[in-house]
Amino acid sequence: MLRSLYSAAVPPPSSDPVAIIGASGALGFGLALRLARTGVPIAIGSRDPARAADTADRAGAIVPEGTFTAHDNAGAARAAEIVVLSVPFRNQSETLTNLKQALSPGQLLIDATVPLAAAVSGKATRMLGVWQGSAAQQALEMVPDGVHVVSALHTVSAASLADLEHPLAQDVLVCGDSRAQKRRAAAVIERIDGLRCVDCGALEMARTAEALTALLISVNSRYKVHAGIRLTSLPNRLWE
Amino acid sequence: MLRSLYSAAVPPPSSDPVAIIGASGALGFGLALRLARTGVPIAIGSRDPARAADTADRAGAIVPEGTFTAHDNAGAARAAEIVVLSVPFRNQSETLTNLKQALSPGQLLIDATVPLAAAVSGKATRMLGVWQGSAAQQALEMVPDGVHVVSALHTVSAASLADLEHPLAQDVLVCGDSRAQKRRAAAVIERIDGLRCVDCGALEMARTAEALTALLISVNSRYKVHAGIRLTSLPNRLWE
Repeated sequence: MLRSLYSAAVPPPSSDPVAIIGASGALGFGLALRLARTGVPIAIGSRDPARAADTADRAGAIVPEGTFTAHDNAGAARAAEIVVLSVPFRNQSETLTNLKQALSPGQLLIDATVPLAAAVSGKATRMLGVWQGSAAQQALEMVPDGVHVVSALHTVSAASLADLEHPLAQDVLVCGDSRAQKRRAAAVIERIDGLRCVDCGALEMARTAEALTALLISVNSRYKVHAGIRLTSLPNRLWE
Repeated sequence: MLRSLYSAAVPPPSSDPVAIIGASGALGFGLALRLARTGVPIAIGSRDPARAADTADRAGAIVPEGTFTAHDNAGAARAAEIVVLSVPFRNQSETLTNLKQALSPGQLLIDATVPLAAAVSGKATRMLGVWQGSAAQQALEMVPDGVHVVSALHTVSAASLADLEHPLAQDVLVCGDSRAQKRRAAAVIERIDGLRCVDCGALEMARTAEALTALLISVNSRYKVHAGIRLTSLPNRLWE
């Protein structure tokens, strides 16, 4: 029902797979379930191929109609044109280093990494300062030339994503330096019922979208909820 | 109508005045109008008393039932227990220095300052790094001992506030180190129909609430709107 209120980024053919690096993590797993339900084949990536296989099995048990294949991270990155990076910040740099040979020009990396201070045993309500400005900008610095980077999905609660009965009804803040690539990301993300993508500007805006995660964690701990974000007063069509 | 969906911070007696430092600015002026409509007497503060008088006249013409008194900033700060600081970031430090003799223990300063890079001729979609962490924390450092500081109101569009016919239906992110003082701020702010205050945690979270302003400016310029923010999945009562 809510869907009709949302903008309509054109969905890609559902046979185009999406790779999720870090699909065994909470956000990646929820995303895998939600996307698979819409008919997107999911390439499950994990550092440990056995863990990827286990995750694919678990996902298949929850979404039997879904298509899940298990890979190491490099294999997953080679299996799809769109790659979601959903790893803890402390692993982001190492993961991207290991993907240098796997990623190729034209691919789109959707970075969902959040530099929470928890990465260095600090609080989850605090952020680390990333010299490049944001985790997304670190990702852009590290991917091979020609690989596009869009920042998205930070503020979506992993718990809400993984609970398939939970109505999402929230926005995804999308940042990137190419409108076309942001639209490409939005077209995939908006396949998930209840997620509306909002173009928040250049990739440098990602630092604020990332930091919102820490703020939401603070709100969540206060109110015992899984809050999301919604921008008000936007037009009906956000991606024409 | 929307009001019933909102949390119910207990409203103070409507005869308690609120001072607005920077009420001639867009956000301060809109806030003055909206609060005055609910019966709150407004002490209009401006560096230039003549400008304050002019602002009070303009406000009175728009909200004839309102009570507006004109002061220099120090006079306004002495005229109310709750003081909203709504000045451009480049004036925040000087303004607070000038208020040191006017503010006294027990008062609540609601800081709405946003350290946009525009303060130093940078972009309005970029933030300045404030060594204390945020403009709100700079305010806390500068007020006399015993004056409470709560950060709020950054994400509310000045244009929407000043357009009294515009339904707000958005959240105000409230940060501060005292729950009681946040509640005190919320009780005043929630007098305005359509504003719901959300406790976002300690004052140090203000840096993200402030930065959201730059993100909303980016969204607004893209979509030609005055966007606000709303958190999803919160309980009905936020301030018990």
